[in-house]
Amino acid sequence: MGKKKLPRFLYGGDYNPEQWPADTWAQDIQIFKQADINSATINVFSWALLEPQEGQYDFTKLDRIVDELSAAGFDIVMATSTAAMPAWMFKKYPAVARVDYQGRRHVFGQRHNFCPTSPDYQRLASGLVTQLAKRYGDNPHIVAWHVNNEYGGNCYCDNCAAAFREWLKQRYQTLDNLNRAWNMNVWSHTIYDWDEIVVPNELGDAWGPEGTETIVAGLSIDYLRFQSDAMLNLFKMEKHIIEQYAPDIPVTTNFHSLPNKMVDYQKWAREQDIISYDSYPAYNMPTYQPAFLYDLMRTLKHQPFMLMESTPAQVNWQPYSPLKRPGQMRATELQAVAHGADTVQFFQLKQALGGSEKFHSAVIAHSGRTDTRAFKEVARLGHDLKRVGSVVKGAGVHAKVGIVFDWSNFWSFEYVDGITKDLQYVPIILDYYRQFYKRNIPTDVISVDDDFSQYDLVVAPVLYMVKPGLGKKIENYVAAGGHIMTSFMSGMVDSSDNIYPGGYPGPLKKVTGVWVEESDAVVPGHQTKITIDGQEHAAHLICDLIHLEGAKSLGEYANEFYAGTPAVTENKFGRGTAWYVGSRLDHDGLSPVIDRAVTASGITPLTDQPTEVEITKRVTTDGQPLYFVLNMSNDQHELPLKFHGYRDLLTDQTARPTLNGWDVEILTK
Amino acid sequence: MGKKKLPRFLYGGDYNPEQWPADTWAQDIQIFKQADINSATINVFSWALLEPQEGQYDFTKLDRIVDELSAAGFDIVMATSTAAMPAWMFKKYPAVARVDYQGRRHVFGQRHNFCPTSPDYQRLASGLVTQLAKRYGDNPHIVAWHVNNEYGGNCYCDNCAAAFREWLKQRYQTLDNLNRAWNMNVWSHTIYDWDEIVVPNELGDAWGPEGTETIVAGLSIDYLRFQSDAMLNLFKMEKHIIEQYAPDIPVTTNFHSLPNKMVDYQKWAREQDIISYDSYPAYNMPTYQPAFLYDLMRTLKHQPFMLMESTPAQVNWQPYSPLKRPGQMRATELQAVAHGADTVQFFQLKQALGGSEKFHSAVIAHSGRTDTRAFKEVARLGHDLKRVGSVVKGAGVHAKVGIVFDWSNFWSFEYVDGITKDLQYVPIILDYYRQFYKRNIPTDVISVDDDFSQYDLVVAPVLYMVKPGLGKKIENYVAAGGHIMTSFMSGMVDSSDNIYPGGYPGPLKKVTGVWVEESDAVVPGHQTKITIDGQEHAAHLICDLIHLEGAKSLGEYANEFYAGTPAVTENKFGRGTAWYVGSRLDHDGLSPVIDRAVTASGITPLTDQPTEVEITKRVTTDGQPLYFVLNMSNDQHELPLKFHGYRDLLTDQTARPTLNGWDVEILTK
Amino acid sequence: MGKKKLPRFLYGGDYNPEQWPADTWAQDIQIFKQADINSATINVFSWALLEPQEGQYDFTKLDRIVDELSAAGFDIVMATSTAAMPAWMFKKYPAVARVDYQGRRHVFGQRHNFCPTSPDYQRLASGLVTQLAKRYGDNPHIVAWHVNNEYGGNCYCDNCAAAFREWLKQRYQTLDNLNRAWNMNVWSHTIYDWDEIVVPNELGDAWGPEGTETIVAGLSIDYLRFQSDAMLNLFKMEKHIIEQYAPDIPVTTNFHSLPNKMVDYQKWAREQDIISYDSYPAYNMPTYQPAFLYDLMRTLKHQPFMLMESTPAQVNWQPYSPLKRPGQMRATELQAVAHGADTVQFFQLKQALGGSEKFHSAVIAHSGRTDTRAFKEVARLGHDLKRVGSVVKGAGVHAKVGIVFDWSNFWSFEYVDGITKDLQYVPIILDYYRQFYKRNIPTDVISVDDDFSQYDLVVAPVLYMVKPGLGKKIENYVAAGGHIMTSFMSGMVDSSDNIYPGGYPGPLKKVTGVWVEESDAVVPGHQTKITIDGQEHAAHLICDLIHLEGAKSLGEYANEFYAGTPAVTENKFGRGTAWYVGSRLDHDGLSPVIDRAVTASGITPLTDQPTEVEITKRVTTDGQPLYFVLNMSNDQHELPLKFHGYRDLLTDQTARPTLNGWDVEILTK
Repeated sequence: MGKKKLPRFLYGGDYNPEQWPADTWAQDIQIFKQADINSATINVFSWALLEPQEGQYDFTKLDRIVDELSAAGFDIVMATSTAAMPAWMFKKYPAVARVDYQGRRHVFGQRHNFCPTSPDYQRLASGLVTQLAKRYGDNPHIVAWHVNNEYGGNCYCDNCAAAFREWLKQRYQTLDNLNRAWNMNVWSHTIYDWDEIVVPNELGDAWGPEGTETIVAGLSIDYLRFQSDAMLNLFKMEKHIIEQYAPDIPVTTNFHSLPNKMVDYQKWAREQDIISYDSYPAYNMPTYQPAFLYDLMRTLKHQPFMLMESTPAQVNWQPYSPLKRPGQMRATELQAVAHGADTVQFFQLKQALGGSEKFHSAVIAHSGRTDTRAFKEVARLGHDLKRVGSVVKGAGVHAKVGIVFDWSNFWSFEYVDGITKDLQYVPIILDYYRQFYKRNIPTDVISVDDDFSQYDLVVAPVLYMVKPGLGKKIENYVAAGGHIMTSFMSGMVDSSDNIYPGGYPGPLKKVTGVWVEESDAVVPGHQTKITIDGQEHAAHLICDLIHLEGAKSLGEYANEFYAGTPAVTENKFGRGTAWYVGSRLDHDGLSPVIDRAVTASGITPLTDQPTEVEITKRVTTDGQPLYFVLNMSNDQHELPLKFHGYRDLLTDQTARPTLNGWDVEILTK
Repeated sequence: MGKKKLPRFLYGGDYNPEQWPADTWAQDIQIFKQADINSATINVFSWALLEPQEGQYDFTKLDRIVDELSAAGFDIVMATSTAAMPAWMFKKYPAVARVDYQGRRHVFGQRHNFCPTSPDYQRLASGLVTQLAKRYGDNPHIVAWHVNNEYGGNCYCDNCAAAFREWLKQRYQTLDNLNRAWNMNVWSHTIYDWDEIVVPNELGDAWGPEGTETIVAGLSIDYLRFQSDAMLNLFKMEKHIIEQYAPDIPVTTNFHSLPNKMVDYQKWAREQDIISYDSYPAYNMPTYQPAFLYDLMRTLKHQPFMLMESTPAQVNWQPYSPLKRPGQMRATELQAVAHGADTVQFFQLKQALGGSEKFHSAVIAHSGRTDTRAFKEVARLGHDLKRVGSVVKGAGVHAKVGIVFDWSNFWSFEYVDGITKDLQYVPIILDYYRQFYKRNIPTDVISVDDDFSQYDLVVAPVLYMVKPGLGKKIENYVAAGGHIMTSFMSGMVDSSDNIYPGGYPGPLKKVTGVWVEESDAVVPGHQTKITIDGQEHAAHLICDLIHLEGAKSLGEYANEFYAGTPAVTENKFGRGTAWYVGSRLDHDGLSPVIDRAVTASGITPLTDQPTEVEITKRVTTDGQPLYFVLNMSNDQHELPLKFHGYRDLLTDQTARPTLNGWDVEILTK
Repeated sequence: MGKKKLPRFLYGGDYNPEQWPADTWAQDIQIFKQADINSATINVFSWALLEPQEGQYDFTKLDRIVDELSAAGFDIVMATSTAAMPAWMFKKYPAVARVDYQGRRHVFGQRHNFCPTSPDYQRLASGLVTQLAKRYGDNPHIVAWHVNNEYGGNCYCDNCAAAFREWLKQRYQTLDNLNRAWNMNVWSHTIYDWDEIVVPNELGDAWGPEGTETIVAGLSIDYLRFQSDAMLNLFKMEKHIIEQYAPDIPVTTNFHSLPNKMVDYQKWAREQDIISYDSYPAYNMPTYQPAFLYDLMRTLKHQPFMLMESTPAQVNWQPYSPLKRPGQMRATELQAVAHGADTVQFFQLKQALGGSEKFHSAVIAHSGRTDTRAFKEVARLGHDLKRVGSVVKGAGVHAKVGIVFDWSNFWSFEYVDGITKDLQYVPIILDYYRQFYKRNIPTDVISVDDDFSQYDLVVAPVLYMVKPGLGKKIENYVAAGGHIMTSFMSGMVDSSDNIYPGGYPGPLKKVTGVWVEESDAVVPGHQTKITIDGQEHAAHLICDLIHLEGAKSLGEYANEFYAGTPAVTENKFGRGTAWYVGSRLDHDGLSPVIDRAVTASGITPLTDQPTEVEITKRVTTDGQPLYFVLNMSNDQHELPLKFHGYRDLLTDQTARPTLNGWDVEILTK
């Protein structure tokens, strides 16, 4: 967060009082206080109220909201309202709306549908934000600015095409460079004039669901980069205005999704004063998946983050929204804190009576009652956070394992047209993350630009795209004693998606000591097997046919014509070691490989004892370790012996040796 | 039907002789007579022949068709031909064609694709109908006028947008009212000028398949209401022309589908002189489903209806069209009569040789032969109807159970974005209908505007939208001794889809004596159970967590954290009783609840004896009860003892104690 | 091939050296020679390089490619590069791009996306081809010209609409004829002006996936005919230019797919000097399917064909691309030769580093190495072909069975809207082909215009559309002693898709001696059975209810209300016999019917001994029979005894009595 900090641990969330008469607000605030809520995010979608027609502003209602919350001692997260444009704007300037992947201009409706390069949108958004910043910039109750909302979604309009060409000129300088980068002599694609470049939607070089199929991967990946940049420019535009009027207040925009494929959060993170994240794990999502996302968010700036949105009970937009079981909401929120959140914020503080989110739960439900199970759980958590928030706030996480997650790889890997249609980036990264999660080994989710030397072990599965210098960086890291693990489909292409000739895994050949001659697709209804330590395991997706060029084999294929050849290898390189995993293994199959790497890297888990509870460790700013022990299930589980006798901050008593379903303890010695 | 009546029981159907040379028609008519066919519906799709270019009419062929049928003693149902526009009209006036949900203007092709607000379409259709009405209005052989055909399908063009805004002005008067009704402060949707309102298709506030997903349910539901009204206006336009020239002849348009979601038949029914329905049960549709639809059609005007279309053998457009088994066609047609049909009409009397419906069966098949199984069955049924038609015609059905089916609920319930994605209106209504069908209890399918006091029991499942006054109407009905049954997802929203605050089921809280605090989604692969009378039953879709506020529990959840809490309740209210069913139950689970309500309401089935046959009762205009006993299966079933010794009108003999597969008896004492 | 012949058996494929620096080419050629490659196809997609702006040509690079290959003794297949247009052309002439089935004009991107009637495209393509033909027409190293590439894909633009109307005027002369042919009095479709005709895409009369659903089958089938003709005109345009400069060199375009539904290859074949085919069997395709396609290609001109493309290892665009097992590539390529190929050509000789096909395998892979399994197999096959190519080249296949495959039936059968939605043409044809394949009986895949008298048995399943004269042709063939087998859904419509009245199978009634009164759909989850020779077999898809009108029954239904009625029949007609198969039978069920026909027709398989190997026979130009024995599996199989002692041309040794997995022998006495 650098010097811009939140004043305290925030407990609150999105509050849209403009949907009700003003005389109901005082009662709302009274109820929030019963739950120890100390903060509200406001003004997320009020553009139409603030600017009923172009250039005419009306802050009467917002002033009063700010006043009432301030008077009640609430910290305010002030949003800028630019994520949903008023109807009059679409009518007056139709080009503020996006042209979609199917080539259609949209009209007024929904939200998050602005064309990022529209000069009208930019001018009008700037105008509004300037007014807001001027008016509220020095308000002492505002503790953070929240720009726009959940950026995402690409535009394919003529404006974007023109801006894309400018972006390309910056990147490639000459058409020769561009033609080479995109390998445009294939299929007569050679470009002779910048104006000949068209956007890659369904009418041009792309097909299939957006972001999955393209003729020219270099073009399509660059378009995703460009759109991410164009949206980032909007964020920066707003941020720079706010900074003029509120120079000391952190500015953020809320990231979202699992993760959001269309926005390169690692590039965006550099522009954020603090990371904020909207977390909505589905009922059937394994608990390591939100943990992974929290670790990603924390690692983006290597600092605590804001849990900007989450739900007190049900969401409305997932296919099924079963009730959270008693205690589940509390454990789910504290899981975010355990991984680095310094706020707990809900969407929404009061449940809308109409509109698309009326079945999204809230602190104040439709019934308006406080004798409900959901409200009581919110109040209990408020009580907990009031007790522990100030201790936890600012506490860091020190991980010695870094798992690489990279947007350029996300994009390029899923554009791959070959071997098997089942290539999905996130599930494979999660395979590896889950290994460390289950071992209670703290893990950072790092970018390819992070400093690897901070880690004893760097895990980079399906590192398909290796940008210039990255191969050398990895070699240096390992040579100096680092440990790296990579996998099939790695080291294949450069940053424009052109193959490194000379044999896979290209720039990783030397460090891994292998040459992959061929890659077999695992087809439905067939099972290839790999033997590791005498045990057979299922091989999925792809089976690399590996030649050892210095490495030694840790596991071999058990069937097929390549039975007996290496499937998993280990290579000593300088003072370090590199592992290559030539197929997608089940959890049980990958486990001995991870064990070996953990041991070799000298990494110790937070407990050696096998356990079903989740454990994380945050270290306070004054060096005190806090152990979060979470039972993320309906069943009873035992506290590991190591923590017996520790003090639970939540109860100020000795740790309970048995955790009931969804029980949480925050332990110190 | 009021004073406009059909002269006799019609047996016939759609006849398109214009597809063949005129010298073949006499032979056709001869064959129809062999099957005792006494009626033909003509001129359904002849606009292009009647008006080869704008304003130039040619009735030569139609005159001859009318003459030949009249000479043969046929009753004629005269259609107006406005459902399929000629090619020249699309070329001259492209805007007569619809803009679809994807935003695309269509061109010449298919049918039923006119924009309902197109001034050109209206002018040209009026012109044609005026010519037809003038020419044939006083023809004594025409027994009914058939306007257009199977109205349905929405348009999203600029004309419709403009007309929609006018419709909204009528409904809401001011933009303040509209913004409040649609809760437009959500997501910055506030409207400041009527012109800012855009139609809710894929480019605006809607997404997903048409009619399923929207940001602003109030807007989308109003658009469906508007489109239904706009099409109804077309019907009224034609009807008013016809009435000028044929004031005593009933005018109708044929309803269709299962049921048609896009047309509010209850509102349309008020404008029909007689209801007509096109019935095409699929081979795998349970037999209670067409029964439900016939009961709906009969209840629309509480009068017998016309079975305007049905098929003598196979249809062409369903995924699979197995042959009807011997006797099945006859039973299927007589089922409609059993539930209130006063006609049996086929599509089609002669099988087209080309075009999209050439594989749709007909009385005269491609072979032209009359020694076929299908023709013999048609002739047998003709013989039957000749015998019983005059007895049956006009006979009414007296039901003491009313099941509520409401288009506003159909629309709003399926737009719900929350709890579970599996919310479908019709299947849940059918759950309840099936209970009464299986018990052989006559049932009306009523609207929320029907007079509830006519019924001993009103069943209103998933009565999600409760319009102003409806809650009070239900309270009054029950207080006065009525019985009501409702379910989960009831009493939630007003007529603009805004939640009733204060706790579910809103305006039904008092009468049901329950407060629903939360609703759990039942997720795939998981089974929640409910115990009723000591038996466990599966709970589906949603489980309401119910507080008894006066009601008593009739069944409790058997598992989950809410085990032991009420799932089904009963509440004495005034002199009546209200039941609340908090989950979707299987047929066996719902059965004891229905039993209890039937007993409490004093309703008696047509037979107490368990039976596999279907039984209905129509009472002739002179008070004679006719019992229809239908074996709707391939297997033998026994006649209930009660009917032994009755006379079968179809054979004029004593009822057979055993019904063979697809056997039917129409019994009187 | 007539007088235009290939000079030798070609081994080579597509080579795109323009994707690499010129100084790498010599090394490539050196590697090709190591594999005994003697040919390269060049210039397939170089338009953008050859014509960087309109009218400015640059042949520097192509000259050098031609020179280097010529110097190395390679035969060149010269492509014309017109299948992928340069970006500048889309910018300058947007209408060169197609309007798709959804009604959207496409832009620059992908390939094979030209509007076939675009005057700009035609002018520019002609210009380029004229330059190429002039420059290289007399080059002695060019052994074939390859026009465009894999034609296919329909356009629905205004230009095409106008051209379609002209095409229709040629076909129908008058609108009366057209209205009658399309049966346009249905649904008010009557046309009064040619300009009223619109193209049948999603906005007009068609719906569903392209080519599957339409209101007016006559219109939609004619549109497919027209588009196939329009593309054929493009081929002829190029061919005529080339012929002026290279009158003695064969001209071809490469056919593709399984087969390509959108191009009537039988009509196109007349314009080809030699047939060429791109073969990409998927990993899970049964081996009789490529065999069928090769037999189709050979029969198109009753001459050997070019295997223009195939893959040395994996393709990139199929859902799963497992590795070919050791020996599998060789067997797969030789299977084509066994069925009539006189070339073996790969896509691609060198693997692209970028673009959509970078994961499509090549002779020179990304590694550039020749010590790979794949390269060694390519070299082995090169060695084989060097040995046997000159013997095999020109050798014919003499089949006495002709299986009818007809594009008008392909189109019309799959447009059928009725009985069952599961009507697919190719799988049913394959059912019958497979019977002969498994018996090792040589089979031609003939058109309805082929001379039936060449065959002892003609098999024409689902001959739904019977064009004028075809019924009589079949009668004459059988009367004169021929044998015909047909099936359900035959003889139903004329060439405009209008039913033949009077009973199915229309013009085939007399020759088959049956009348089909009704056709039952077999529905999911239900099993109808047929008894043949005392054995019960499953009936699929459709069950015809057959009246014997001269025929005798060979098999009867075993269940349903039509149990005991005929399902398969045989009819003596003149000196020949006709079989009618009233349902879709499993392989085992169809087998006794085929046995009976084979015996009656006096056809002898290449071996009587049951065997798992595939056997074909080609007869060299000097009359020597060559038996190809292929083990198309991973398992060992025995050589039939008949061939013991034969000489294997591939080894010049006595035939091995046991074939290992994927082993091949080419045997002579």
